[in-house]
Amino acid sequence: MPTEAMAHERIPNWKALAVLSSDALSSVAYATEEILIPLSLLSVAAMSWSLPIAVAVGLLLIIITLSYQQTIECYPHGGGAYTVSKENIGTHAGLIAGASLLIDYILTVAVSVSAGVQNMAAAIPYVDNHKVVCGVVIVIFIAVMNLRGIRESSNIFALPTYFFIFSLMTLLAGGTYRYLMGEIPNPAPIIHETYPDVQIFLILKAFSSGCAALTGIEAISNGVPIFKTPSHTNAKKTMVWMTLILGVMFLGLTFLAHTFRITPIHGQTVISQLSMSIFGKGIFFYICQGTTAAILVLAANTSYADFPRLASLISRDGFLPRQFSSMGDRLVFSNGIIALSAAAAFLIVIFKGDTHLLIPLYAVGVFLSFTLSQTGMIIFHFREREAHWIKSAFLNFVGAITTFAVLIVIAMTKFLSGAWIVVILIPLLVSLFKSIQRHYKDVNDQLTRKLHRSAPVSGRLGHVAVVPVSGIHPGVLDAINYALSLTQDVRCCYVNLDPHVTEQLKSEWPKWAPHTQLVVLDSPYRSVITPVLNFLDNVGLETYGDMITVVIPEFVTSKWYHQLLHNQTALVLRTALKFKRGKFITSVRYYLD
Amino acid sequence: MPTEAMAHERIPNWKALAVLSSDALSSVAYATEEILIPLSLLSVAAMSWSLPIAVAVGLLLIIITLSYQQTIECYPHGGGAYTVSKENIGTHAGLIAGASLLIDYILTVAVSVSAGVQNMAAAIPYVDNHKVVCGVVIVIFIAVMNLRGIRESSNIFALPTYFFIFSLMTLLAGGTYRYLMGEIPNPAPIIHETYPDVQIFLILKAFSSGCAALTGIEAISNGVPIFKTPSHTNAKKTMVWMTLILGVMFLGLTFLAHTFRITPIHGQTVISQLSMSIFGKGIFFYICQGTTAAILVLAANTSYADFPRLASLISRDGFLPRQFSSMGDRLVFSNGIIALSAAAAFLIVIFKGDTHLLIPLYAVGVFLSFTLSQTGMIIFHFREREAHWIKSAFLNFVGAITTFAVLIVIAMTKFLSGAWIVVILIPLLVSLFKSIQRHYKDVNDQLTRKLHRSAPVSGRLGHVAVVPVSGIHPGVLDAINYALSLTQDVRCCYVNLDPHVTEQLKSEWPKWAPHTQLVVLDSPYRSVITPVLNFLDNVGLETYGDMITVVIPEFVTSKWYHQLLHNQTALVLRTALKFKRGKFITSVRYYLD
Repeated sequence: MPTEAMAHERIPNWKALAVLSSDALSSVAYATEEILIPLSLLSVAAMSWSLPIAVAVGLLLIIITLSYQQTIECYPHGGGAYTVSKENIGTHAGLIAGASLLIDYILTVAVSVSAGVQNMAAAIPYVDNHKVVCGVVIVIFIAVMNLRGIRESSNIFALPTYFFIFSLMTLLAGGTYRYLMGEIPNPAPIIHETYPDVQIFLILKAFSSGCAALTGIEAISNGVPIFKTPSHTNAKKTMVWMTLILGVMFLGLTFLAHTFRITPIHGQTVISQLSMSIFGKGIFFYICQGTTAAILVLAANTSYADFPRLASLISRDGFLPRQFSSMGDRLVFSNGIIALSAAAAFLIVIFKGDTHLLIPLYAVGVFLSFTLSQTGMIIFHFREREAHWIKSAFLNFVGAITTFAVLIVIAMTKFLSGAWIVVILIPLLVSLFKSIQRHYKDVNDQLTRKLHRSAPVSGRLGHVAVVPVSGIHPGVLDAINYALSLTQDVRCCYVNLDPHVTEQLKSEWPKWAPHTQLVVLDSPYRSVITPVLNFLDNVGLETYGDMITVVIPEFVTSKWYHQLLHNQTALVLRTALKFKRGKFITSVRYYLD
Repeated sequence: MPTEAMAHERIPNWKALAVLSSDALSSVAYATEEILIPLSLLSVAAMSWSLPIAVAVGLLLIIITLSYQQTIECYPHGGGAYTVSKENIGTHAGLIAGASLLIDYILTVAVSVSAGVQNMAAAIPYVDNHKVVCGVVIVIFIAVMNLRGIRESSNIFALPTYFFIFSLMTLLAGGTYRYLMGEIPNPAPIIHETYPDVQIFLILKAFSSGCAALTGIEAISNGVPIFKTPSHTNAKKTMVWMTLILGVMFLGLTFLAHTFRITPIHGQTVISQLSMSIFGKGIFFYICQGTTAAILVLAANTSYADFPRLASLISRDGFLPRQFSSMGDRLVFSNGIIALSAAAAFLIVIFKGDTHLLIPLYAVGVFLSFTLSQTGMIIFHFREREAHWIKSAFLNFVGAITTFAVLIVIAMTKFLSGAWIVVILIPLLVSLFKSIQRHYKDVNDQLTRKLHRSAPVSGRLGHVAVVPVSGIHPGVLDAINYALSLTQDVRCCYVNLDPHVTEQLKSEWPKWAPHTQLVVLDSPYRSVITPVLNFLDNVGLETYGDMITVVIPEFVTSKWYHQLLHNQTALVLRTALKFKRGKFITSVRYYLD
């Protein structure tokens, strides 16, 4: 499995930065715009508030980074919010963090793909008219790539990530140059120099939206094991670099957006408007939109590794169906990929591929998991009292308090815009987790209780094999051969629908199946199933206590849809016997050309 | 089975009339309206053409009745269009008739239910706004009743049918009385006394629509066996009665609609407008709408007996999947009911529950089967030369020519309104029938060819049983017991995911399963399936030529949705082994409380 392989690979910092931070860095593609939209709805002047709001988000970024540095130190094997919350606060907190993260991974796919499509749309008008379709196609594309098992090689990540950083930095440099030379179109009127009076609720709302810039920054603390030794030092260094790049890009974009008087307009993004203003609609414009779209798709792709990994952790603790726990199985992994893609595609369709409509759902889960994870770390420090634990606990405390405050702000300002969905969904998921665990526990208790009343396996029980026969053909002969290898008591039965055909069968029988019994069953109402079931009941009564295996010849056709024309009787028998104790069914397949 | 029971019941004519003619009689509920709609789109004056058109439909009714009287005589066991065409013209003609009939049965459900809903809607405005939903709910209701196996008792039919006849006759009597007393609102201006010039195409179109009145009149000739002896005399008498009642109701309604200047309007039907004009919106209005809706639902219900019966006939000839042929099995019957309901509900949704939009599809299949059936009868007479065969052949000839002419008219005038769908669908169905038969024939040839190269069943082959074990619990013990009853070579295998747990299992093993081998499989990537599959391959190589049965313990939970939490490994193993020859899977079920 790629994930296992990756854990042993241990890659250099510059590659790890690319692998782990595409989600975080890509969020600058929509964060500035999200701040501007609520402000622009009030007035153009109000948009100047975007600067102090961006600074606040930047401060929050620093606080969260400092806080997560402590997690890296203490959880060298990777400390996800689920693990940290569960181990330090308790199972319930862990489940809440787990539920928020699962929802987050789905939203990461939906938001990133939608934003990617919006960036494409800014360059290709055709895409703009088919945003939902394009979004769903991209999700399907990522899903197919993952189902076919792309190598999660760090090289695939490195190129688009550094391309994106490079093109955004070029954009920022170009913009700053223009600004310094005073080459700005429509210079600001004096009234814009001060901040107009604006309701605090609106500012908080814009701030909440801007917090979308912080999604994904915890990835490095989860991925410590992939760094070269000393892995935690390397991880901490890399995280500082990521914060630096993210901060510069986000603040720079917001500053330029303000300086160049960018207003959110339909069909364009802040990045596309900026690059058009600074470099014109030339080749760089298309490069910039292309790399932005690429890193967003890459960010969506990271969820395809995170989602099954977390589901596996939760499942091993018994809170999700057991099949999620064995990550090593392709088929199990596939279920996760399909579930994740279906949920993300559903969100894209429902929210019409509009990033702005999806963002309110996004940030609640992220900040809930931040808060729980930081709180867990405080408890960790108080328990472990490792070196410098007071400093660490203080930093985590600041982190926990801040992210909690932000969580409250987001939940309040964004409640009606969609956060309510997540607020309802998280407790529902948690109670689902718990009822799954309760079921497994019940079954386990029941099995343990019954095992104590069971006898060890005994010697041989008697065995009768029944072969329902539809005529004499090689498939039936195979089935009888199989039945004879089970037991000597093989009873074939045939439903008499046409006396003429039955007579012929009876006369040919001894030639093909000597020494086996053929019982002809009458069927006054032309039913095939009922006589066979009655016959089985009679055999059961007669050979009381023996095992009865029904051996059914089944055709395997070369074309799958031909399968519909065969084996229906087998299917019905299987269903009918499903609830009869002591009767077993085995299909003996016969392959048609 | 009800159908078998019915065949032996032999009911009196008055009951048989109710059972067999609800489909035909119910069509007067929409036929007049269908004539008026195309005319009313031209002008109010043009609607006076409805009278001669209705007379033409009436003549057609007499011709078809006379023609079908011959079928009753010659096919005392029931002569459906499929049988008559196949036996006299040839397989191909039979398949065309069969395809048209299957489509017809679906349309009967869709049209009758839609018309029933429209009649309810005329009385209950709420229904008018939710026609599609109401239609689908009624289809589901009929389906559920049939799935639960309502007795197709003649008593259920008698009441609504005679209620309907009674209320329509009352309506006609009331209307005639009013007419004779000159109490007609808005007496006709003089200009309406003559027939205005109208394009012949429009008249043919209105006539085609009016032919919807003739759907279902063949039912008596299919159902001869249910009449008391002499059944064919009784059937012929009853058919005359049905024609009489149908003719009087249809002509009477059209005459009154003309006299009372009824114009098709949204949310009302001809019957509802007439009964409102004649008796006012009192209790009789609701009785009239209620009985009309009831007979329409009853008419839809008749398809639920006809569809599986015809599918069974076609299937016995090898043109439909074999499972349709054993009518005696509840489950097989259920598939037909579900398929019929799904198709009808689909049509109702697509055509928005509008009878008028469905009618163009309806009549093509009906008249195609009429034509084929009459043509088959002509050939029958020429071959059999029974008493009075020339007279019979002549009557069938007139019938065949007329219905063929009508078929052409309908196909031409209604082609663009929807008849094209049926014109495309029938050949598609016929080719599907043929390819199904070809497949069965191919398989049969292949099996016969291979049988000649097969040896008779031999004695015992070796047998190895493999039991994948997930721990020690009663379900596993049951599986091992079962395996031991198959063979003495039982090999249990366990996938080692946690060395500690594995050690414990190993130490407890001899206590619970003495003398059986436990193989511990390593799984470096935490996969459960891969190690088991590899182990099976190794066992296969080691015991070359022996049969290998994998015995899997499977849990049966008391709540179906709990099933999702178990047995997924069994499912995956089953899928993985699906295409491995020589390996068999048997599940040993363990029932949880």
